[in-house]
Amino acid sequence: MAESDAAAPAELTGALADRDYREAVVDLLAVVAYGELSAFERLVEDAKLAPTLEDKLALAQMAGAELAKVQPLIDRISKLGGDPFAAMAPFHEALDEFHAHTAPADWHEGLVKAFVGDSLARDFYREIAAFLDPDTRDLVVSSVVEGQHSAFAVDRLRQAIADDPPLGGRLALWGRRLMGEALIQAQRVAADRDALTALLVGGVDRPGLDLAALGRMFTRLTERHSERMAELGLDP
Amino acid sequence: MAESDAAAPAELTGALADRDYREAVVDLLAVVAYGELSAFERLVEDAKLAPTLEDKLALAQMAGAELAKVQPLIDRISKLGGDPFAAMAPFHEALDEFHAHTAPADWHEGLVKAFVGDSLARDFYREIAAFLDPDTRDLVVSSVVEGQHSAFAVDRLRQAIADDPPLGGRLALWGRRLMGEALIQAQRVAADRDALTALLVGGVDRPGLDLAALGRMFTRLTERHSERMAELGLDP
Repeated sequence: MAESDAAAPAELTGALADRDYREAVVDLLAVVAYGELSAFERLVEDAKLAPTLEDKLALAQMAGAELAKVQPLIDRISKLGGDPFAAMAPFHEALDEFHAHTAPADWHEGLVKAFVGDSLARDFYREIAAFLDPDTRDLVVSSVVEGQHSAFAVDRLRQAIADDPPLGGRLALWGRRLMGEALIQAQRVAADRDALTALLVGGVDRPGLDLAALGRMFTRLTERHSERMAELGLDP
Repeated sequence: MAESDAAAPAELTGALADRDYREAVVDLLAVVAYGELSAFERLVEDAKLAPTLEDKLALAQMAGAELAKVQPLIDRISKLGGDPFAAMAPFHEALDEFHAHTAPADWHEGLVKAFVGDSLARDFYREIAAFLDPDTRDLVVSSVVEGQHSAFAVDRLRQAIADDPPLGGRLALWGRRLMGEALIQAQRVAADRDALTALLVGGVDRPGLDLAALGRMFTRLTERHSERMAELGLDP
């Protein structure tokens, strides 16, 4: 992360004056930014599967909400002395692979993916908020707005499953697959990015990786995913 | 337009109490809404041609700005007693055909299309503003915000043409083709939608079509397009 190796910008104090911490935060903001940007692209792509123009617009608006989160993250990375696009580069492969392995076959799979992806991102932001300095935390938490947009996906899915119960079985499997692919890529990112992982498991003052703590976070994320699938009326 | 045939919503007064006028305005807002929505979709598609993630994000943000204009137009159509998605249906073919005939072959063609399309839309909104009741006019004019986003396209294009002058010749031809395709589809919409055309050429109190007046508007739009191509350093 050559872009963070420079001396700290003068206005950075507290945890942010620490180069390792700053590197970790830049990494974190970069993975979130690229995650939102790639989610935007895929949601627009998946919106092509919509049965009506109204549904297409609703999914496009959900995509637009993801896109709107990107610029503040980029601005924050720049303020921390990072190069936003260089910082995102290490995460392209994991996120692109996630999307390549989870291309929805139809509109309902697309809706489940939109809902699951959006919810999982919110849960992840809440998990990491505790480990962040106040300014970065505010930025991350502010993007966890309760989604009027994903409420649309829940409504549509509940109705579709009520109309066609076998669809529920197929979408339950699809939900499991989405979560499995997300975990595969998350583990990969965690293994590749030491500074980021150190931040996530409890602060840069703890030496080495604590894979058990990271595992517990993944377990919590999985549990919440299961609860949400149950809310949809799907067998998690 | 069965959705506008109902009695006027009680709060509509002035020109809006007139059913023909209301039909024409619903038509106009619908073509603008579908135009913005389809522009959004195509810009995101064209963003895939971007040479860098930074360029891709810039074009995606231009797309996001188009998308953000759609909901207020939809809300206004509903307020006028129209069904927004039914009202857009008559315009799908013309706009979809425009995009099908103007798929950019590379990033620079995509940038020219983004810039030309965005600018042409603004010019069109300014042209029609004079024919609208105050509330509708405010809505249409408010979407003519001077584009920080399209400034990005102009910068990139000027630089690319300076670096590779023969590119300018190819993009000049491309610009002409975009304008030609836009006119073909606009004439088609004008011929199909009598109420809309009547509105455009001077108000619903004037009987019949005045194709000469409509022709003059198209001429003005073409002249401004030529001026913009010249600004880019392209032979119009």
